[in-house]
Amino acid sequence: MNENLLGIAAGILTSVAMLPQLIKVIKEKNVGDLSWVMILVLICGLSLWVWYGVLKNELPIILSNAFAVLVNSCLFICYFLYKDNSD
Amino acid sequence: MNENLLGIAAGILTSVAMLPQLIKVIKEKNVGDLSWVMILVLICGLSLWVWYGVLKNELPIILSNAFAVLVNSCLFICYFLYKDNSD
Repeated sequence: MNENLLGIAAGILTSVAMLPQLIKVIKEKNVGDLSWVMILVLICGLSLWVWYGVLKNELPIILSNAFAVLVNSCLFICYFLYKDNSD
Repeated sequence: MNENLLGIAAGILTSVAMLPQLIKVIKEKNVGDLSWVMILVLICGLSLWVWYGVLKNELPIILSNAFAVLVNSCLFICYFLYKDNSD
């Protein structure tokens, strides 16, 4: 089994699994129980993974974590846009 | 910068960011808006990452994704234990 293909498949699945939350937040304009601290911790961790992927020169790791950084950055922005809608 | 240390730091941050959701679900015995389909997709993706880490022989990837599989498996079990408590 080609390792890159495996990594890409893994990256697609973990990326797809993140999207519904973002879609829900944008649709309902409500961040519900999201915690901005945890989103920030996650963005830091994911950014380190991107850095790790760059050092190791592994494209699947770079791509899937960069995508995750993007999704979570959107969630982070939504948090401050919509937090007043939540109760 | 040592790549393994970087990977371990990244893994700790992304693992820590997952825990509050599990703690909240267990505490409140309520799965809220969790989707079991997405948890399952995530578990599949994370398992492929573990496999990728094994093939590439990269311990940080194996450990952090195996931990994530564990956390999400707990969420998956909680979903079916507590789903009737939600509305």
